[in-house]
Amino acid sequence: MVIVLKNQATKKQIDELINWLTRYDVKPNLVEGVHSRIIGLIGDTTAVDIESVQAKEIVEAVKRVQEPYKNANRRFHPEDTVIDVRGRKIGGGTLTVIAGPCSVETEEQTIKTAIAVKEAGATMLRGGAFKPRTSPYAFQGLGREGIEILRKAREETGLPIVTEIMDLSDIDLFDDVDIIQVGARNSQNFTLLKALGRCDKPVLLKRGLSGTLQELLMSAEYIMSEGNSKVILCERGIRTYETATRNVLDLASVPLLHQKTHLPVTVDPSHATGIASLIEPCALGAVAVGCDALEIEVHIDPPHAWSDGAQSLTPAQFAATMDKLRAMAEFCGRPIEK
Amino acid sequence: MVIVLKNQATKKQIDELINWLTRYDVKPNLVEGVHSRIIGLIGDTTAVDIESVQAKEIVEAVKRVQEPYKNANRRFHPEDTVIDVRGRKIGGGTLTVIAGPCSVETEEQTIKTAIAVKEAGATMLRGGAFKPRTSPYAFQGLGREGIEILRKAREETGLPIVTEIMDLSDIDLFDDVDIIQVGARNSQNFTLLKALGRCDKPVLLKRGLSGTLQELLMSAEYIMSEGNSKVILCERGIRTYETATRNVLDLASVPLLHQKTHLPVTVDPSHATGIASLIEPCALGAVAVGCDALEIEVHIDPPHAWSDGAQSLTPAQFAATMDKLRAMAEFCGRPIEK
Amino acid sequence: MVIVLKNQATKKQIDELINWLTRYDVKPNLVEGVHSRIIGLIGDTTAVDIESVQAKEIVEAVKRVQEPYKNANRRFHPEDTVIDVRGRKIGGGTLTVIAGPCSVETEEQTIKTAIAVKEAGATMLRGGAFKPRTSPYAFQGLGREGIEILRKAREETGLPIVTEIMDLSDIDLFDDVDIIQVGARNSQNFTLLKALGRCDKPVLLKRGLSGTLQELLMSAEYIMSEGNSKVILCERGIRTYETATRNVLDLASVPLLHQKTHLPVTVDPSHATGIASLIEPCALGAVAVGCDALEIEVHIDPPHAWSDGAQSLTPAQFAATMDKLRAMAEFCGRPIEK
Amino acid sequence: MVIVLKNQATKKQIDELINWLTRYDVKPNLVEGVHSRIIGLIGDTTAVDIESVQAKEIVEAVKRVQEPYKNANRRFHPEDTVIDVRGRKIGGGTLTVIAGPCSVETEEQTIKTAIAVKEAGATMLRGGAFKPRTSPYAFQGLGREGIEILRKAREETGLPIVTEIMDLSDIDLFDDVDIIQVGARNSQNFTLLKALGRCDKPVLLKRGLSGTLQELLMSAEYIMSEGNSKVILCERGIRTYETATRNVLDLASVPLLHQKTHLPVTVDPSHATGIASLIEPCALGAVAVGCDALEIEVHIDPPHAWSDGAQSLTPAQFAATMDKLRAMAEFCGRPIEK
Repeated sequence: MVIVLKNQATKKQIDELINWLTRYDVKPNLVEGVHSRIIGLIGDTTAVDIESVQAKEIVEAVKRVQEPYKNANRRFHPEDTVIDVRGRKIGGGTLTVIAGPCSVETEEQTIKTAIAVKEAGATMLRGGAFKPRTSPYAFQGLGREGIEILRKAREETGLPIVTEIMDLSDIDLFDDVDIIQVGARNSQNFTLLKALGRCDKPVLLKRGLSGTLQELLMSAEYIMSEGNSKVILCERGIRTYETATRNVLDLASVPLLHQKTHLPVTVDPSHATGIASLIEPCALGAVAVGCDALEIEVHIDPPHAWSDGAQSLTPAQFAATMDKLRAMAEFCGRPIEK
Repeated sequence: MVIVLKNQATKKQIDELINWLTRYDVKPNLVEGVHSRIIGLIGDTTAVDIESVQAKEIVEAVKRVQEPYKNANRRFHPEDTVIDVRGRKIGGGTLTVIAGPCSVETEEQTIKTAIAVKEAGATMLRGGAFKPRTSPYAFQGLGREGIEILRKAREETGLPIVTEIMDLSDIDLFDDVDIIQVGARNSQNFTLLKALGRCDKPVLLKRGLSGTLQELLMSAEYIMSEGNSKVILCERGIRTYETATRNVLDLASVPLLHQKTHLPVTVDPSHATGIASLIEPCALGAVAVGCDALEIEVHIDPPHAWSDGAQSLTPAQFAATMDKLRAMAEFCGRPIEK
Repeated sequence: MVIVLKNQATKKQIDELINWLTRYDVKPNLVEGVHSRIIGLIGDTTAVDIESVQAKEIVEAVKRVQEPYKNANRRFHPEDTVIDVRGRKIGGGTLTVIAGPCSVETEEQTIKTAIAVKEAGATMLRGGAFKPRTSPYAFQGLGREGIEILRKAREETGLPIVTEIMDLSDIDLFDDVDIIQVGARNSQNFTLLKALGRCDKPVLLKRGLSGTLQELLMSAEYIMSEGNSKVILCERGIRTYETATRNVLDLASVPLLHQKTHLPVTVDPSHATGIASLIEPCALGAVAVGCDALEIEVHIDPPHAWSDGAQSLTPAQFAATMDKLRAMAEFCGRPIEK
Repeated sequence: MVIVLKNQATKKQIDELINWLTRYDVKPNLVEGVHSRIIGLIGDTTAVDIESVQAKEIVEAVKRVQEPYKNANRRFHPEDTVIDVRGRKIGGGTLTVIAGPCSVETEEQTIKTAIAVKEAGATMLRGGAFKPRTSPYAFQGLGREGIEILRKAREETGLPIVTEIMDLSDIDLFDDVDIIQVGARNSQNFTLLKALGRCDKPVLLKRGLSGTLQELLMSAEYIMSEGNSKVILCERGIRTYETATRNVLDLASVPLLHQKTHLPVTVDPSHATGIASLIEPCALGAVAVGCDALEIEVHIDPPHAWSDGAQSLTPAQFAATMDKLRAMAEFCGRPIEK
């Protein structure tokens, strides 16, 4: 971190600032040029609060040179993180396909879908038991019962299950879930993230509705700093002024995240676009930019889905998409994990 | 709600759709013109899930005519909601000024600030005990102890206290708080909102980081639909591409919210701008557009604040600002609530 | 400007960079600390291309300390710029109200509106002769004839006229216009800006659809660097994800621009909100945050306006708004310019 | 287009509105249900100004069912448009790679780059002679001389040349250019678009800085409505709050544009990301989602480029990227056009 001082800063003020900086685990290093004075901070600047530094009277500008995250940082952990989920792997050179309905509606719907996505070659089953809905009058998910149904579907198909937690108070219900998903609206629910950091379970962390990549990595850091390093990041589109798609899918984030972090990166083309016909091309694009996993919504009867029907594939569409994804994944040298 | 049907829709499909729509408490009304067929929905369309309708094969387009919120809707509740907080009122023609430090740091800092803002004419005291910080390495707030300190500051000054809840699991700690604040990052934490809907305590609900006004009203609806009608909305700036200010303060939201809802509207110029020198002009602007309350950060020693120093006023600056706000509030016919 | 060098930079590379930097009118100043090496640039860094510096192999980070604009910078020109328009002044402590129709449609409509806004107390007349419309099938403005009509309206009322230029090739038609407006879509039409910089005529420069304040100031700098210092900035709302209003009016930009530049600042609540009922409160808010001028759309018959009817005031509404603006402007110590 | 009427609308008002609507080439069709009255517009609603309709007193809501563009609409022109440029084709099942420097700097730099990109397999040469730069103090391009240099590079290599026009007044200089590019900042310079519509030359039209896809198509419509149907659309990233990349590349726009229009779609990963190391993965992703062309910046010496060095590939990097693009293009069944 480089702190540029104002010209009028006195010796006394600078000493005070240097003294104040020692609260962090860094070595302040005053560099006095002819026309400018700068303090360079040597050491681990992760914990330095850039806004507090900026608020000092004698500070003209501050520039962070190193990233404010450590555990998630590829600089300190060059090897890809590979997460084992019931013997299947996420990260490290394969493609994982997580598919299933937006919401768990009934046992029949869920199990039928699970069987269908398994047959088509999906690696894991997703399904929402707790649903964050904008309206209190919309279907809120089956809750505990939904998780029960997912477990039955896992029994039936062997597919590991991925489902979203909405509140810390429900955490015990997720004991037998294979991957706990944190939705976009909870991407900065720091209390929840810390609690998940104390679990020994993979967490699929979605980017916030308008979250920056740095915020996503800082949210991963919240989980990791508590001891859980099994974090899977997920790009699911960001909110912009464009209304032609539900969100804007930021595929450049995939290679950029791969540069910045060792954690695996998932892409969710269903929520990103909100349009069923865009899922296949966007999923292919996601594989081409190097994603480690895909999360795709599949429903046995989209027009009658209780949520997100417009962005769900039918089992037949999903099977056709899987054929193309399989070929693309092979071509890109990261075959679908089975 | 108006549903435009595709030209090729068959009688059978239309009947099926009409039948499906009866799951909602509405009367579908088919209007057949020469060249177009439309279904109008009569009744309470609040609960109708527009995305599910959109997902039907024969639907060309759907247009919501009525708002999807009921309890928060001025249409059904024309009178302004006025919320009583220990004898002080928010809404209904006065201006409430809520001031205090971003974070509760120490008893001395909090009580000194409380005394200073009271002397300057503030109506209530704010202070963060639980702090949502982007970095896990930044100061996270004093938690329970912070709330204790706020209670002491209330004892000392008589000012009601406003403080933020970050997680449902802490709710018991807020029993003796006067207004529970929900921060921007929790604006769509629906589980928390529902729980607050079962409290008998005013809730200061902030707009999400990139929340629409309709989402804000739907979040208010979450609280109100559970029985708690004491909701205070708060505009605190939204995230955009502009980096000159921390967020973009959307002052037009104030008169627009007043048209759409009967709930009082607060403006937080501190978080909106992130720049101390912009707080006074923006607060004056907020009063001029008709806000019911202001929330302003004041710190006895901003350069040494543990968070948000760059956007805090000193007690002297706050007192000067209050003089101008008092005059502006009088001029606008909504004097400061004492 | 501060350039942080990478640790591995060699003496030879640093010398090369320092040599390269001398192409700009600055003195590079190498500051070598124990653990970090930094180059500070002393002198006028306005012309230094920060992206080119960033592209050098040995550069870790660059931080601009001074603004990249000179002529528009209050630092070098502390006094407010006051622009004289046919004896009326914009800037320097008064409020100018520019009102009139979105489009010049007919001579009758324009002159009637001009008379009405003059009676209500407006200072200048606006009206579009060239209309930037999203659709090629929408009314494109009367062009040359529209400017003729505006001149007649000026003759009739004495109000100076403000109208938008869309292309450099039309510039001769604007010889007798009092203020040339540059619309949001042309805010970075640099060829046009340079040409206007060679005119001796006030330019009302609108912020781009998603323009930053720095970009607005750089566009002003384009005009000023060619010799024309009569630039009036205009905040007209920016594009965001929010659809409740046409744009999001950024009123905090007014005091922030006043800190950064000496140029007068106009606010256009009509385009910012797109909703007639929000114009009055937003105009009052704009005066309260300190704007120098307002631009307001008025139409004698909004439902039959050829463009922007939904955001136009009737003459009666405008007169009522003017009464409130007059009082607010007096209260704020910057009475309406007559 | 469906117009929902307010309940209180009188017979007389409705007749007036229907009468007013006949100014457009449409047949208004009143549909009276028991509880709602709606006007459906039959015919070509392209020219109907939705805002003017919305401004009518008795109108509750308006919903456009058909797109407001005609010439660009795939509905009326199902076959892909294929544009011939000196014997090379853009659109229709091949991949075109347009490569070259951001700016034409010198004859040597341009010709060397042209030879290098040709050897690597590029189809066309790009290079900026007129440069839209945020700062008036930055390099503005060589102008006329730059175009001369591009012509020499074409002579040398046979590659067709693509270069940007910034202002209508320069149009004669583009007589011998093969594709005229319209930059993001001119994407809604309607006067320029109309003039280009009267040329018989392919136009590469970039999406605006914060342009919607519908606006892009309407800008294409501006060109096409004047007679020139050789329009190539270009996705180049949009402006958002995310600062990790220069813009956010919206790859979902490619398949969506292919659904909506028959025009070919180019992707520019250089401007979209601003980071050289992201260009290859994003270009591969662009091919996978189905783009017809790519535009990539290549410079013989990026650290010394006069503009955009940080986002330029070296010839060696470009050659390596071309190898991967060639394989991906073959795999996707749209081989690189030679």
